[in-house]
Amino acid sequence: MREDLLSRRAIRMKANDIREILKWISQDVISFGGGLPDPSTFPRDEIKEISRDVIEKYGDRALQYSLTEGIVELREELVRFAARDGMSVDGPDSVLVTVGSQEAIELIGRVFIDEGDIVITENPTYLATLQSWSVYGPRIVGIPMDEEGMRTDILEEKLRSIYSGGGKVKLVYTVPTAQNPTGISMSVERRKHLLELASRYDIYIIEDNPYSYYVFEGSAPPHLKALDEEGRVIYLSTASKIFVPGLRVGWVLASGDVVRWLSLAKQAVSLHTSTLSQYLLLEALRRGIIERTVPRVRELYRRKRDAMLSALERHMPSGVQWTKPIGGMFIWVTLPSGIDARSLLKAAIVKYRVAYVPGAAFHVDGTGQNTMRLNFTYPSFEEIEIGVNRLSLAVREALEAGL
Amino acid sequence: MREDLLSRRAIRMKANDIREILKWISQDVISFGGGLPDPSTFPRDEIKEISRDVIEKYGDRALQYSLTEGIVELREELVRFAARDGMSVDGPDSVLVTVGSQEAIELIGRVFIDEGDIVITENPTYLATLQSWSVYGPRIVGIPMDEEGMRTDILEEKLRSIYSGGGKVKLVYTVPTAQNPTGISMSVERRKHLLELASRYDIYIIEDNPYSYYVFEGSAPPHLKALDEEGRVIYLSTASKIFVPGLRVGWVLASGDVVRWLSLAKQAVSLHTSTLSQYLLLEALRRGIIERTVPRVRELYRRKRDAMLSALERHMPSGVQWTKPIGGMFIWVTLPSGIDARSLLKAAIVKYRVAYVPGAAFHVDGTGQNTMRLNFTYPSFEEIEIGVNRLSLAVREALEAGL
Repeated sequence: MREDLLSRRAIRMKANDIREILKWISQDVISFGGGLPDPSTFPRDEIKEISRDVIEKYGDRALQYSLTEGIVELREELVRFAARDGMSVDGPDSVLVTVGSQEAIELIGRVFIDEGDIVITENPTYLATLQSWSVYGPRIVGIPMDEEGMRTDILEEKLRSIYSGGGKVKLVYTVPTAQNPTGISMSVERRKHLLELASRYDIYIIEDNPYSYYVFEGSAPPHLKALDEEGRVIYLSTASKIFVPGLRVGWVLASGDVVRWLSLAKQAVSLHTSTLSQYLLLEALRRGIIERTVPRVRELYRRKRDAMLSALERHMPSGVQWTKPIGGMFIWVTLPSGIDARSLLKAAIVKYRVAYVPGAAFHVDGTGQNTMRLNFTYPSFEEIEIGVNRLSLAVREALEAGL
Repeated sequence: MREDLLSRRAIRMKANDIREILKWISQDVISFGGGLPDPSTFPRDEIKEISRDVIEKYGDRALQYSLTEGIVELREELVRFAARDGMSVDGPDSVLVTVGSQEAIELIGRVFIDEGDIVITENPTYLATLQSWSVYGPRIVGIPMDEEGMRTDILEEKLRSIYSGGGKVKLVYTVPTAQNPTGISMSVERRKHLLELASRYDIYIIEDNPYSYYVFEGSAPPHLKALDEEGRVIYLSTASKIFVPGLRVGWVLASGDVVRWLSLAKQAVSLHTSTLSQYLLLEALRRGIIERTVPRVRELYRRKRDAMLSALERHMPSGVQWTKPIGGMFIWVTLPSGIDARSLLKAAIVKYRVAYVPGAAFHVDGTGQNTMRLNFTYPSFEEIEIGVNRLSLAVREALEAGL
């Protein structure tokens, strides 16, 4: 095709490493790559039942065009769901239903980010957010993390220096609970500090929360949205991890005016989210299917995490480190410096039949060459054991070759 | 909220008139506004059956994350569907499944259009395309139409003058068959001329085709895509008008490299289209449900068109003109010049309880103040009769007031 017809925006698009890697993977490769839920947890029979009931109960409405904001009944149900989670939301006008959280991230980029705008994220942060926003050309400033999450003291310094230089920050993006990719949760003190800084500098916070449902130890810390008294948190969540991903339903909780802008943007992007998908989620919430499913899945994922930690402990050569995530779906591995996880990947797949996501793509500053993200929710227990063993062999070989 | 945080892009966003108007409408208003299919045509029982079967047959795959390009089985089925319609498509790699055609339009804007780029459309043209692309800041050049569609002789002159001035054109966007909003179809000669011009100047053509399934007189003219020997047509269609709109499934047929770029863009926008929706469409195609439904719906829509034409004939004051569309879902009405259809709308809704879409928003050049689009597929026969009568009273009042 004629490359000269492409927009400058297109030139900035980078293939999402995870999606690209998924394509190489054949049957006999054990994948720790994607962020897929364990399909054995899908409430298949209930969904079969609900599909029938929804079409009988709501009739043509379940199959017709619907409001860009989302069907009212679902938005009302999501207000109640948020309340159970400690978040007070004004009403359905403060909710926008999206095509997964991915669309919400895209809409936020579209509505807020101009070329050169400063956006703050954790470093590393969620790959697909970086990918989505990259087309809008922001300057991403990454804040390092420790075991309590984003180093808000460093954020404070950064903000001071940006604002004293005449700059301003558009957004702070955070996955505060069981972060993707590191599995780290932000402490309550840091959350309060972040909100205080956002208030001082009048900045919106994007709280991306797919994982708080899967916190294995203790309870999940309060959402930023629950602590927010000024309406400056734009909260994102999704049915992908607590129900099924294939329906592509996510949602935004935010002030009514933010929802109106995002909704205006959504008109031109997808018009509305699948009506049938929305009704399926609505009925799953009403019937308590999600509340019943989540604790069972949480326990399964906790055991899978433990299995992967144990396998790493037994197989990995010394010098390799990894997080002990308190929740979520990923373990974050740091190889001895000098080993490039991206170069290692091809050998890992082709020779050792195991896949992962190289960590560099999650970094905003070109660092993290020696890191990788391992998913523990999708593979079976047996695959976790065999796959970690294979991965260890690949790492040992790289260490010996001094790669 | 803080308007200073909005992107310049957001400032360009305009609410889609149709969506805004739908919000004002209460039960007792007859709406000719939206482009909704008649819900009595939805194959509800079959969809109930298919949902059950799909979950039984495809199991977790129907509920899991899936490929950004769309599930392979559906893309293969769409290749066969295209072949029945005279279009030869290389294979599934030349198909992208989208969240309705709306997402396809958005992705094309994202991949191709930079600020100031020249894009050609019919004038008037599909409102939501203008809305979607407006955020990318193109210079839209509208080409007038007559009863044979886009005036390609005028297009030829325009192209000559643009290129001789050192400019270039990125895309030509057309709804060649039963156009939205005018209901006009482009003649075969014009189609060939358009392809010839696109070839001479090396331009992509976007062929947006939701309506060729509903051509009431004779057969639909061949698709531009079917006449295209150079792979320069990017063809869009949707399940919204031939199956059900609520699933949000559309598709693009294009050369493999165009599909790869659009797919890369889609990763960051929606990740993928609802897996369940895709399997539902797949099975509906395989079971021949769509082939069986379309002729029945076509006949119903033809009768509804005739009912609206007859009502317009009987009720409208002289000086009002309208198209006799050979297909599609809309009649395009031109009021005596000087009457502003947008000003008239509020009175029409509040006093006369009838709604339509003012035509100005479909125009790229600020003209069309005295035009309106009427949908005849959604209202019942009774509503068509009563609604046109009400609309005629509103128009008479405006004429008498000399508005």
